[in-house]
Amino acid sequence: MTIRIGVIGTGSIGREHIERVTRRTSGAVISAVTDIDRALAEKAAGEAGGARVCADGAELIASADVDAVLVTSWGPTHAEHVLGAVAAGKPVLCEKPLATTAEDCLAVMAAEEAYGRRLVQVGFMRRYDTGYRELKRIISGGGIGRALMMHCAHRNRAVPDAYTTDMAVQDSGVHEIDAARWLLNDEIVSVQVIVPRSTSRRFEHLADPQFILFETADGVRIDLEVFVNCQYGYDIQCEAIGEKGLIRLPDPARAQLRAAARIGTAIDQEWDDRFSAAFDAELQAWVDSAAAGRATGPSAWDGYAATAVSVAAVRAQRSGGVEQVEMVDKPAFYA
Amino acid sequence: MTIRIGVIGTGSIGREHIERVTRRTSGAVISAVTDIDRALAEKAAGEAGGARVCADGAELIASADVDAVLVTSWGPTHAEHVLGAVAAGKPVLCEKPLATTAEDCLAVMAAEEAYGRRLVQVGFMRRYDTGYRELKRIISGGGIGRALMMHCAHRNRAVPDAYTTDMAVQDSGVHEIDAARWLLNDEIVSVQVIVPRSTSRRFEHLADPQFILFETADGVRIDLEVFVNCQYGYDIQCEAIGEKGLIRLPDPARAQLRAAARIGTAIDQEWDDRFSAAFDAELQAWVDSAAAGRATGPSAWDGYAATAVSVAAVRAQRSGGVEQVEMVDKPAFYA
Amino acid sequence: MTIRIGVIGTGSIGREHIERVTRRTSGAVISAVTDIDRALAEKAAGEAGGARVCADGAELIASADVDAVLVTSWGPTHAEHVLGAVAAGKPVLCEKPLATTAEDCLAVMAAEEAYGRRLVQVGFMRRYDTGYRELKRIISGGGIGRALMMHCAHRNRAVPDAYTTDMAVQDSGVHEIDAARWLLNDEIVSVQVIVPRSTSRRFEHLADPQFILFETADGVRIDLEVFVNCQYGYDIQCEAIGEKGLIRLPDPARAQLRAAARIGTAIDQEWDDRFSAAFDAELQAWVDSAAAGRATGPSAWDGYAATAVSVAAVRAQRSGGVEQVEMVDKPAFYA
Amino acid sequence: MTIRIGVIGTGSIGREHIERVTRRTSGAVISAVTDIDRALAEKAAGEAGGARVCADGAELIASADVDAVLVTSWGPTHAEHVLGAVAAGKPVLCEKPLATTAEDCLAVMAAEEAYGRRLVQVGFMRRYDTGYRELKRIISGGGIGRALMMHCAHRNRAVPDAYTTDMAVQDSGVHEIDAARWLLNDEIVSVQVIVPRSTSRRFEHLADPQFILFETADGVRIDLEVFVNCQYGYDIQCEAIGEKGLIRLPDPARAQLRAAARIGTAIDQEWDDRFSAAFDAELQAWVDSAAAGRATGPSAWDGYAATAVSVAAVRAQRSGGVEQVEMVDKPAFYA
Repeated sequence: MTIRIGVIGTGSIGREHIERVTRRTSGAVISAVTDIDRALAEKAAGEAGGARVCADGAELIASADVDAVLVTSWGPTHAEHVLGAVAAGKPVLCEKPLATTAEDCLAVMAAEEAYGRRLVQVGFMRRYDTGYRELKRIISGGGIGRALMMHCAHRNRAVPDAYTTDMAVQDSGVHEIDAARWLLNDEIVSVQVIVPRSTSRRFEHLADPQFILFETADGVRIDLEVFVNCQYGYDIQCEAIGEKGLIRLPDPARAQLRAAARIGTAIDQEWDDRFSAAFDAELQAWVDSAAAGRATGPSAWDGYAATAVSVAAVRAQRSGGVEQVEMVDKPAFYA
Repeated sequence: MTIRIGVIGTGSIGREHIERVTRRTSGAVISAVTDIDRALAEKAAGEAGGARVCADGAELIASADVDAVLVTSWGPTHAEHVLGAVAAGKPVLCEKPLATTAEDCLAVMAAEEAYGRRLVQVGFMRRYDTGYRELKRIISGGGIGRALMMHCAHRNRAVPDAYTTDMAVQDSGVHEIDAARWLLNDEIVSVQVIVPRSTSRRFEHLADPQFILFETADGVRIDLEVFVNCQYGYDIQCEAIGEKGLIRLPDPARAQLRAAARIGTAIDQEWDDRFSAAFDAELQAWVDSAAAGRATGPSAWDGYAATAVSVAAVRAQRSGGVEQVEMVDKPAFYA
Repeated sequence: MTIRIGVIGTGSIGREHIERVTRRTSGAVISAVTDIDRALAEKAAGEAGGARVCADGAELIASADVDAVLVTSWGPTHAEHVLGAVAAGKPVLCEKPLATTAEDCLAVMAAEEAYGRRLVQVGFMRRYDTGYRELKRIISGGGIGRALMMHCAHRNRAVPDAYTTDMAVQDSGVHEIDAARWLLNDEIVSVQVIVPRSTSRRFEHLADPQFILFETADGVRIDLEVFVNCQYGYDIQCEAIGEKGLIRLPDPARAQLRAAARIGTAIDQEWDDRFSAAFDAELQAWVDSAAAGRATGPSAWDGYAATAVSVAAVRAQRSGGVEQVEMVDKPAFYA
Repeated sequence: MTIRIGVIGTGSIGREHIERVTRRTSGAVISAVTDIDRALAEKAAGEAGGARVCADGAELIASADVDAVLVTSWGPTHAEHVLGAVAAGKPVLCEKPLATTAEDCLAVMAAEEAYGRRLVQVGFMRRYDTGYRELKRIISGGGIGRALMMHCAHRNRAVPDAYTTDMAVQDSGVHEIDAARWLLNDEIVSVQVIVPRSTSRRFEHLADPQFILFETADGVRIDLEVFVNCQYGYDIQCEAIGEKGLIRLPDPARAQLRAAARIGTAIDQEWDDRFSAAFDAELQAWVDSAAAGRATGPSAWDGYAATAVSVAAVRAQRSGGVEQVEMVDKPAFYA
């Protein structure tokens, strides 16, 4: 059975996903696309092997030849499209964030619960990275004992002028927020943001790096360096420390060169190089579950929790103090 | 466009490939299967989502619903099926070896050249491994200067009773033979086999480990340890040394655990774990080229060269001396 | 010329230093020892190859056959002995802390300045570790650009019942306090202590692990995990992140074993294994400078700064908030 | 007790040892030096803190103020000086080779046995390197099971014009010959030399690299790449493979730098950087045993065996075939 996918938003991430579905995923085709920039949508439709261009998300979602929806539009529009897909009973993969406000996330959860079956997967692709999966397996298997701390770093080579201080949480750190929750099977309850002196290699408006401290319901402390103009590459670090051991995310496997008085290995320069295989696995897993009419992986609850923590973190950026995360109790539906 | 694939041979490797095509490859379905064990073929057909079972390879190759052929049968039957596919003008991916004799390989080459376009890809999947590809890129880019030596190791945790001394070359070392030729863009001209004392953890009939020395046309020396009962895991090592540097295949990226007074990472236990992603990429590349009616990747010439070197290596196992590789000149067709 | 050393305090660290001087250091002998436990002193005197036992520190310092003094007694007695040595114009190596109060440290500084030449070296041996020295060289050489952050970890396998919460700063973290100041050539101005949930593998009275945050005068942020019952070994981590790169302390070089499905290396279990070569180098450097009648390496100012930061950190353990470090301006004498 | 050392040969290695004894070794002074170049000897005497200059080795050995002798002269003179020291009943540390012919080595062994106690230590400093010592401990402890193979590499950045093809064995490879014998507790019985194409970055008269194959009495196979113009640094590799695992010499611990799209660590450029700590430990161990009037560590038998294997290897360089090592049975004296 081949799933027909409609894509809402054909910017760079949308087109990467289209290429994945078209070139490296089994059991799916792109049947329709839409974008606020129609010319861009038409270009993407061509690349997708002749998909139809819809006028807007609503039309796309309603189309009979769309079995499942991929939301890769601008963040503030996510909730609307996801709600539309759920209303139509169609599986939907929504790039993070699920919604920019906790309220909208709650609305998605309510809609999904009313529908009675999970339809929503949020695009936290790290859960499909082989390194993170190994961490999950070892932590869950008791390999480090009860977890006590996590140390994380999220570094980008450089970001454009449009990147703002709050995006260090909302766009970058949100991946670690989800990864930590998932790895620890725990919820984040408070957050504090510390700002070291900033690098001179940034746009003036940006606080970079930032050092973010989280506490979980179980008392685990997580620290996260977000440094988006580190110059040297895209570098993701994660280690969890437990009562009897420590587990550390591997660096990507790269050939070791000995030359010119150095042992050296290459560092990825862009996030899509680093997580390319994870994105592939994410898309294939989504297609597989969509074919069964349901969603697996990161849920609307995970999207809600990530947004709730992000909201508190942005408050913490501004207050300089410890901010509590405000969250509803986890519905049984997501247990 | 979806390629319809017929699979000849539904043993373990055949069924792994069927699963790959069915679950993780874009643009292909399994339309037909065959095996000398019909019950096995029927089981595989079910797993492939309802493929037809053919009586034999000839019927499968001739089928109108088979666009491309995957040969995963017993080695001695490879040549017959590949020749059949070429005669039918259908792209074919043949697991190594292309044929068990140099003569049969030459026959395949002649048939392909007569057809006028490459149709044959041989299943040397290491060319699709990201580590080997990085080696290739760096060596080709001059990163180590002119190559002088290669040190390789091919270790399996354990092999069954049926594994014989010559299989250390024909089944195991053949992958390094192809990888070395490809990485160095050079041909192997002689081979010598040295036999250290054998491990006690083997069946009595088997010389294990073996230490194999190759010389190339350009004077590069390659040494290869084949140790198929090393107990600790499946471990592939490769380094090339050139006039100005050394490049080493990375170990797979695995999480680093610090516990119980040790820093440790896991080692793969089986070859299909180690090269799983390479097999995926190989299959996708084959499907993509088959869709264009042609073959890319390791060619019939590469299959011939690997067999010619293997034949000399088996002679060297028996003689204890240096054996010359007998090969025809490379046809312009494969330049 | 051979320097005659008097040792005040013949507990475990004192006896390790005696062994170093006696067995692995050039140009020095142990001429006198003292300890509040006279039997212990006599035993150490024998091990030192027949040193004299003095009644107390004052007698030892005053002895004509003592050219230089090694203070390895209980921390609260350090200041008294160091002041005595300075008054006698004798070079002195004082194990950390220089003194338990900032006031006593200031008294030592005043005495030394009055004497007119550096006589005091404080036992921060990490400055003699080859790994830390390489960090220092690279940071000073501009290899990471202007420093922005440091991430550190100080882990012990286990500590005895007598180890208390404030010792996480005063005994353990004090090494990182000195190392950070030295590596960054900067002073720490504030400190905050965060307490994750504690490991169950500790004595009840102890908060373990602790997570300590420092800020420097230049705005560099340093975080330090102190975890003294980590079970798996003695493990020291340090990385500095600058505007263009990151430098990380190497793990000790240990043989890599591949066996039983794991790649593994051993982890040191005790601090004196980890820093054995650094202690050797520290003692040799002290002996060399003492032979010239002066001190080099970590100074009384460094001892003062470490104590001042420790004092603030202990306040921060209790207050839970950010505590300012109270320090006098750096005297020109120590510039 | 302080040992008074006489040094025969004050070239670069002699002066390095003088510095070690003078600056970093406990319990020894340099009392006398000699060299065929008297001016050089006088300079070294000054650096040694005022040692006497002797006319020749015989005078130095006979001197009442020389308790032990360090032979760092030109290789062909070693045997004469070692025999002189043994005749005088004085402990002697002789840089490799013990002698340039097997006959001279046997003469030293005979003299030592006649004396009745070990007096001779040969300067194979790798036995004092912490990495090699860890290999020895793990192999001896059964960590890899019964040994089957060793893979070694000995790479120098570059060598001067005076370096000849046979020195690849006699000067460079001889260290691996000793290390392999020691690690395996086994004797080498045959040797073969294979010559890959040579690097263009060498003097014309030199075959570089060379690939040397050894077989031991127990059937272990050892391969050794000697590449003395590898350009990138001084790099020593060693791994032993046994029935249940593999143990690999660690690379030196160096700080890891992430910058400019690379993870990199420095490689030592010269052999005395790489083995500096091993030389220190070797000298201290020799001084300690000399103080007790005896020798430990690599013996005259080890020196003999290394020379016997080297002689066979030079024959193998010329013959291109497998050459047998000719050795007497091991005297009970050296058991």
